[in-house]
Amino acid sequence: MNNVKLIIKIIQGEIMNIAILTSGGDSSGMNNAIKKFVEYSYEKGYTPYFIYRGLEGLIDGKIKKATYKDVSGIIYRGGTIIKSSRSKRWYDKNYRKTAYENLKKHNIDALIILGGDGSFRALKVFYNEFKIPFMGIPATIDNDIALNEYSIGVDTALNIIREAVDDIRDTASSFSRAFVIETMGRECGYLALVSAIANGAEMCLIPEVEFNLKNLKKRYLKEIKEGRDYFIAIVAEGLKISAKIKEWFDSEIGFESRLTVLGHIQRGGAPTVIERLRASEFIVNALDNIEKTPNKIVTYYDDKFVLRDLEEIENSTYRLDEKLLKLAYPLMGKE
Amino acid sequence: MNNVKLIIKIIQGEIMNIAILTSGGDSSGMNNAIKKFVEYSYEKGYTPYFIYRGLEGLIDGKIKKATYKDVSGIIYRGGTIIKSSRSKRWYDKNYRKTAYENLKKHNIDALIILGGDGSFRALKVFYNEFKIPFMGIPATIDNDIALNEYSIGVDTALNIIREAVDDIRDTASSFSRAFVIETMGRECGYLALVSAIANGAEMCLIPEVEFNLKNLKKRYLKEIKEGRDYFIAIVAEGLKISAKIKEWFDSEIGFESRLTVLGHIQRGGAPTVIERLRASEFIVNALDNIEKTPNKIVTYYDDKFVLRDLEEIENSTYRLDEKLLKLAYPLMGKE
Amino acid sequence: MNNVKLIIKIIQGEIMNIAILTSGGDSSGMNNAIKKFVEYSYEKGYTPYFIYRGLEGLIDGKIKKATYKDVSGIIYRGGTIIKSSRSKRWYDKNYRKTAYENLKKHNIDALIILGGDGSFRALKVFYNEFKIPFMGIPATIDNDIALNEYSIGVDTALNIIREAVDDIRDTASSFSRAFVIETMGRECGYLALVSAIANGAEMCLIPEVEFNLKNLKKRYLKEIKEGRDYFIAIVAEGLKISAKIKEWFDSEIGFESRLTVLGHIQRGGAPTVIERLRASEFIVNALDNIEKTPNKIVTYYDDKFVLRDLEEIENSTYRLDEKLLKLAYPLMGKE
Amino acid sequence: MNNVKLIIKIIQGEIMNIAILTSGGDSSGMNNAIKKFVEYSYEKGYTPYFIYRGLEGLIDGKIKKATYKDVSGIIYRGGTIIKSSRSKRWYDKNYRKTAYENLKKHNIDALIILGGDGSFRALKVFYNEFKIPFMGIPATIDNDIALNEYSIGVDTALNIIREAVDDIRDTASSFSRAFVIETMGRECGYLALVSAIANGAEMCLIPEVEFNLKNLKKRYLKEIKEGRDYFIAIVAEGLKISAKIKEWFDSEIGFESRLTVLGHIQRGGAPTVIERLRASEFIVNALDNIEKTPNKIVTYYDDKFVLRDLEEIENSTYRLDEKLLKLAYPLMGKE
Repeated sequence: MNNVKLIIKIIQGEIMNIAILTSGGDSSGMNNAIKKFVEYSYEKGYTPYFIYRGLEGLIDGKIKKATYKDVSGIIYRGGTIIKSSRSKRWYDKNYRKTAYENLKKHNIDALIILGGDGSFRALKVFYNEFKIPFMGIPATIDNDIALNEYSIGVDTALNIIREAVDDIRDTASSFSRAFVIETMGRECGYLALVSAIANGAEMCLIPEVEFNLKNLKKRYLKEIKEGRDYFIAIVAEGLKISAKIKEWFDSEIGFESRLTVLGHIQRGGAPTVIERLRASEFIVNALDNIEKTPNKIVTYYDDKFVLRDLEEIENSTYRLDEKLLKLAYPLMGKE
Repeated sequence: MNNVKLIIKIIQGEIMNIAILTSGGDSSGMNNAIKKFVEYSYEKGYTPYFIYRGLEGLIDGKIKKATYKDVSGIIYRGGTIIKSSRSKRWYDKNYRKTAYENLKKHNIDALIILGGDGSFRALKVFYNEFKIPFMGIPATIDNDIALNEYSIGVDTALNIIREAVDDIRDTASSFSRAFVIETMGRECGYLALVSAIANGAEMCLIPEVEFNLKNLKKRYLKEIKEGRDYFIAIVAEGLKISAKIKEWFDSEIGFESRLTVLGHIQRGGAPTVIERLRASEFIVNALDNIEKTPNKIVTYYDDKFVLRDLEEIENSTYRLDEKLLKLAYPLMGKE
Repeated sequence: MNNVKLIIKIIQGEIMNIAILTSGGDSSGMNNAIKKFVEYSYEKGYTPYFIYRGLEGLIDGKIKKATYKDVSGIIYRGGTIIKSSRSKRWYDKNYRKTAYENLKKHNIDALIILGGDGSFRALKVFYNEFKIPFMGIPATIDNDIALNEYSIGVDTALNIIREAVDDIRDTASSFSRAFVIETMGRECGYLALVSAIANGAEMCLIPEVEFNLKNLKKRYLKEIKEGRDYFIAIVAEGLKISAKIKEWFDSEIGFESRLTVLGHIQRGGAPTVIERLRASEFIVNALDNIEKTPNKIVTYYDDKFVLRDLEEIENSTYRLDEKLLKLAYPLMGKE
Repeated sequence: MNNVKLIIKIIQGEIMNIAILTSGGDSSGMNNAIKKFVEYSYEKGYTPYFIYRGLEGLIDGKIKKATYKDVSGIIYRGGTIIKSSRSKRWYDKNYRKTAYENLKKHNIDALIILGGDGSFRALKVFYNEFKIPFMGIPATIDNDIALNEYSIGVDTALNIIREAVDDIRDTASSFSRAFVIETMGRECGYLALVSAIANGAEMCLIPEVEFNLKNLKKRYLKEIKEGRDYFIAIVAEGLKISAKIKEWFDSEIGFESRLTVLGHIQRGGAPTVIERLRASEFIVNALDNIEKTPNKIVTYYDDKFVLRDLEEIENSTYRLDEKLLKLAYPLMGKE
């Protein structure tokens, strides 16, 4: 089947075989999306396929028809059963051509990709070259996609952080310590911001907002005089200053401190209820629209699912919720 | 201070002392609301008070000024540190008069109540008689308040159910059993509905929708032939048929079954991240509006906080989300 | 291969093919035993086999060679991946003969069974008839096997109960209630006893010890006067009096009460660290001894693993730890 | 009361007032010990006291009579409600004299200390100078006290690590990565050793045993060829090589890797069932013996509680369990 035939097929609403792949960092809830993808595909008359190991697996032809059995019992497991990867080869057109040929071999008509905006761009380029329609679904615990308020994995990550901070608080209050806790998020402070508010932290530092240590110092010294005897500081990974903030507590505040980098425990864990529901809804929205309005990103915005062009997302800037920011300003030393 | 003075005070925006109480069944997240209530009251220049044991405590004069220290370290505890109750005495006007006198004694100008619509009505009656302004905040794991999509406690309850069902599934699949799991909810199937979808149950029975056991039987027998070897059935408490459904699996489906009534573990547990955030936002909305638009219920609707008159709520009918219902119809035997 | 040949094989230390099965109620940790069974069998030069669905599956010939892949990723899952059953057919010698023929067909030389003493007896009878050597490993959350202090599943079950009671305590203390919590255990109060102590309950009723409600009533009424405002009562399932105790709190103590039957959540859940270690050690002891001293039960006694004849167990009586009992006597109203 | 009087009091079995303090790093279960200390002291006719902030608080005179109310509701909280510290001042005899005078002021006759061997030594020196009898109870997640197999905090720490590793495994297997996980333990590899076995890790490096990376490399490369696609490596903090091992996976094994330092989440968390029981038993043993055989350490050895002189402990070497070590040798590259 050549491109022309494929286009005709799409025009005629003849998509038959749809494949799903997960790309970039994994996040909890991906498995729920994968399960719903298989079930809802069959319900709609499509035949679902798995591509293992993301774009790398697409290049290597790791494609397999998906069955109900493949997705039985995965509802409460973190990670992604079809595995993920980051692919450098994808930047080379020869490999993309190989990928296309792999899809043709299995008669795959369309793709669903779970990942971040880098993954969406990868498939957009691919569509421009080979006309394989796709739908993108945000799945990244960074939650850093513009015009999108929820990415698969976020509620679970936040609750894992919450449990860790609750545990650390026990020690902090036992021991009159400052605890600097680094949360994930490369350029995005979303996890740190929400966690700091939800966990009642005393400090919250994120890349998006300038912070003022002088003001914080003034306040902390005052509070210590009034009896405060521990601090919880949440610092976003992207700032790369967690170790310095730890030293700042030691030397500037005169408060013995400890640094905890939460790391990859934030990605795993059994998906929460909201995670499971949203993951399913993302899939339903993707499959319901892939024929009539393909090549879109399914975003969650203002409590609704909204289809967007990748360009619209790329031309917008990711913005943290103003209401949340305002709550956190005191924790950043902003006046 | 007599009524006239109080009314003048309200008109002039002179509310100074505000008390909070929790009423009816407790739910996780109440403590987060209580903490925010104390902090945000001081921030706004109010003096916060606690009324212990709900309306019973109001009658008994269990009123105390609230301090920061009272709410330190309660962020991760389920239940309500100011305790709750159901009050029959409140129906007697003499007791309400006593309650009013208790409030006057402490110069309480207004009340915040966390509970269900019965609790709101109690304070509405009280306002009509004694002109004590109030704000109501939905807090009930039943989530059965009309025109309101979220009550404090719901996300935590759903996640506790999720963990229990995940655990039970281990046994069900080890043992080829049908498990009938009864979730809380007197007249409202919300918890059962969402849990059945999020946990991938095979049956979901709720008071709001007529179910069809004949259809379910036909499907189950077919699925058993095809290899299905366990069932998870979620049944809402309000139907009072859990035991019968268990027997139905034994006798009609010929599948050995077990009944688990989840019970009160659904109320407790450390509040989830969403619980903590929403609880805080409910309080902010209540305190920001109690002077200019008192005697309202703060509802969460369409992802926004909306103030409503109790009458509006009472004249509406609680309705489950259509989208969720549609997903669950097959689990009810509806065709 | 006939019986004579098999006996020679055993005498010559020529056991080659060993099969494992799980029988009776499932318990968390069975999967860890199953994983270790596969790994350690290969390490020792045996070929491991699975029998699915316990004795029922043995009769039905559900036997399969086990691979490393079968047991990958099962380390944190409750239940048993090879499934379990209770078998009535086993009492019929014809079915046992079929079972024996199934074993011969796969050249299975010996059996490892995880279950309770009923399961051990089943294989003892089978050995007497067909000379298939076996080793029994206690795996039951009842922990009711004489001369054995630990059965697989117990530490996990206790910790699940602990979390449930911690959650319920939140509600109990919020609401001035008595909570009657029924734990599993048919004729054995072990779970109730340990849970009551570990969770600081006010009442503990078990089948092994006569309790005195009059004494308890006297004490409770005194404590209520002194300010006690909630009760946690742990009652073993085997007594079948949970509902009555609930009513007793309502009517005799005048304290509103609630009943929670914990049910099957006690069987599932991710195995704890001790569970995983002990499950592995049971298997190592079984496999290390099956050739030289077959037909034994591996018991855990006085912090050591001890091999015992089934008769020794059957002729002894299960006894709860005296030290624990003494701690719990006040919770039973014993003076 | 001078020393002579005090000695007479001890000889005559007249200890009346006993104080407890927690010292060094906190660990989960300390609160259960503190609760039992208060309850069992009253039961035995002693009056219990708290010393806040360990030896620092003893120097500063932070001493208070303990009540039932102080310990209500602490059963499920990690950390220590009486707070802990590390004290440099204690090395100065003048401060110890102050401490002694503080004890005299409150008529404290004896001390119970929860901590590590440094803490025991501190009180031994103190006893030699001022004749305040004491009992030491091991409480440190390092579990590094000679002739003692269990320290308060260990079972909880192990289960927190377990949950973290289970979560990380989701990501590791989704992504074909090597995860290096650093567990706590300054000079002691106990946590790393047990966790590696219980969690089925592929690598376990601890300070007590020489490891062989060459052998591990050979094995890993072979396993990768056979299909292995992720590694979990548990490395004890004390080795200070976690970062190097991460690089080793990257460069020598050619396997993309990630480092997670679990950090202080290992100290907190709700105590497990075993933690709660053992903590109580340690206290019972300490209080039952403080009059007749004071100045001992209560150790847990061979499943029994054994009183030991500090000298006996100091003259012995801490040794990891041989059986566990043997299981872990392959994970260390030992042949």
